Amino acid sequence: MQHRQVRIVGTGKYVPKRRVSDTEMDRALGVPEGWSRQKTNVIERYFIEDETASQMGAKAAYAALESAGLTFADIDCLVCTSGTMEQPIPCTAALIQEAMGQPHAGVPAFDINTTCLSFVAGLDVMSYMVAAGRYRYVLLVSTEVASKGLNWRHKESAALFGDGAAAAVIGPAGAEEPSKLLYARMETYSAGARYSEIRGGGSALHASAYSADTADRFLFDMQGDALFRMASQKLPAFLDKLLAGAGCGLDSVKLVVPHQGSAMAMRLLARKLGIADDRLMSITPDHGNTIAASIPMGLHEAIRQRRIERGDRVLLIGTSAGLSLGGVVLDY
Amino acid sequence: MQHRQVRIVGTGKYVPKRRVSDTEMDRALGVPEGWSRQKTNVIERYFIEDETASQMGAKAAYAALESAGLTFADIDCLVCTSGTMEQPIPCTAALIQEAMGQPHAGVPAFDINTTCLSFVAGLDVMSYMVAAGRYRYVLLVSTEVASKGLNWRHKESAALFGDGAAAAVIGPAGAEEPSKLLYARMETYSAGARYSEIRGGGSALHASAYSADTADRFLFDMQGDALFRMASQKLPAFLDKLLAGAGCGLDSVKLVVPHQGSAMAMRLLARKLGIADDRLMSITPDHGNTIAASIPMGLHEAIRQRRIERGDRVLLIGTSAGLSLGGVVLDY
Repeated sequence: MQHRQVRIVGTGKYVPKRRVSDTEMDRALGVPEGWSRQKTNVIERYFIEDETASQMGAKAAYAALESAGLTFADIDCLVCTSGTMEQPIPCTAALIQEAMGQPHAGVPAFDINTTCLSFVAGLDVMSYMVAAGRYRYVLLVSTEVASKGLNWRHKESAALFGDGAAAAVIGPAGAEEPSKLLYARMETYSAGARYSEIRGGGSALHASAYSADTADRFLFDMQGDALFRMASQKLPAFLDKLLAGAGCGLDSVKLVVPHQGSAMAMRLLARKLGIADDRLMSITPDHGNTIAASIPMGLHEAIRQRRIERGDRVLLIGTSAGLSLGGVVLDY
Repeated sequence: MQHRQVRIVGTGKYVPKRRVSDTEMDRALGVPEGWSRQKTNVIERYFIEDETASQMGAKAAYAALESAGLTFADIDCLVCTSGTMEQPIPCTAALIQEAMGQPHAGVPAFDINTTCLSFVAGLDVMSYMVAAGRYRYVLLVSTEVASKGLNWRHKESAALFGDGAAAAVIGPAGAEEPSKLLYARMETYSAGARYSEIRGGGSALHASAYSADTADRFLFDMQGDALFRMASQKLPAFLDKLLAGAGCGLDSVKLVVPHQGSAMAMRLLARKLGIADDRLMSITPDHGNTIAASIPMGLHEAIRQRRIERGDRVLLIGTSAGLSLGGVVLDY
């Protein structure tokens, strides 16, 4: 029994100022007009100019606090749930605390990272600390600068990603409230670890090895077909186990908020898992794939657009580099 | 009440083959013989030659499994609790799963990072999932390649660090067992976020900006004096709260396993906190500071050297970049 009396108290998002349209992307990639939109389903995304991940994260975090009716003083723990880091040391969560103007708060700060599923994993893990009463309100912040790691010669992935941040405050739910977290599940198959990589920038290939010859190794590289095959093979059984654990069918789910991966990955969810379009939250067209921020951003937009109300059942689901599959069934 | 019926089931460590003595370090730094040992208290440390963090982590992980009397099939979750990453994507935990030869296992894998306190934070967080029965056995792996990020012109910090890995399996403790986790606490003051940094290698300063002029920004930079002042100011109150939460005095603690920071930081613990030398685990002389691996490595050595037995009270404590303070009081 995984049931946790934990709820999403508030959510927020932030996108950087610079909007990059599909036609601008077509020109940047040197492809015919319409190519980017047709290949990726992304009409516009945002790229940072001089902002940092922590600055974006701080803005999304304050938006989430406002929507929760809370202030920073209510927060007991700050977890950065991003797939990209701002700098190797210290962790991004500490930099977000600093960017929030709370340098003396003492609020514990650390990062949970499993690339695109970082938010889902962070929500799952931290909900146990909330349920146990260790922390009352936990701030989860996913803030991603995808644009710095794109390989412009890999046109289809370059056209897919966007920068941005999303945050959520989680807290305890009373027994009388309709909100709860029913079940979560994660699986990692490192047989797919090499299908989606940035190889350089850590200890295996330090930045000092950067040169014209090695430049590509410091950029995102995805073997889309292999990744897609593995995800399609694993996802149906994963979803079955997730729903069985939650003790519900897909028909009880009001809205599915998937990771906003490639157009192919989104179609896979819709068709192979039998999720009708009107129950599938898509923010890909106006945000692109914002890595780990994509699921909490989708959730935020679903709440803002009133596609879900308190008590509605929501399924968060996706795949990430690793290869990992992750999902959470919750009553919002 | 934070009490958790969770225990350290087994521990393991691994150090790379290449042993670097203090005299070799003196020569490498161009300092008089004896300087490195005198400044850092490190007589020997190990540096990788061609190993990766995940390969080291896999070896420490198997050693921990063996000491726990378990096999990989018993593990429900694999968490990498390191301060350095092997590569930006995917997370190091997935690469450790791969290096363990378990690519199809499906065991969930993610990273928890708060630099030198990653293991302490990971132990704290994951113990709630174990206590709740979500995962039975969780493998925590700290694996660090410090040597790639050292600035050889910062002689004192270059002489301090070592590479290596340590791992621990945690699992449920029966009510009749003497083992439990009494209390854990963490505080982060980002006022100290800039005292200990590697600025380049993430999204704020991408590897493509690497040049002779920017090289230093991709290496470890510590403002030792400022860090020390802040840590000395915060640590006594932190320890008081930690012990108060655990409901015990320092006199009930058999052994303190601190982060093996600078010689100055170790002396601070001993003197300012009033911890006698015979109750302070030091592995600095023969390992150096192995970042997040230093606390689990100290714990492993304490168990191996029979300085603690089942039921003995142990205090894990340290500071990390962030600036964070963290500690766990447990009955081993």
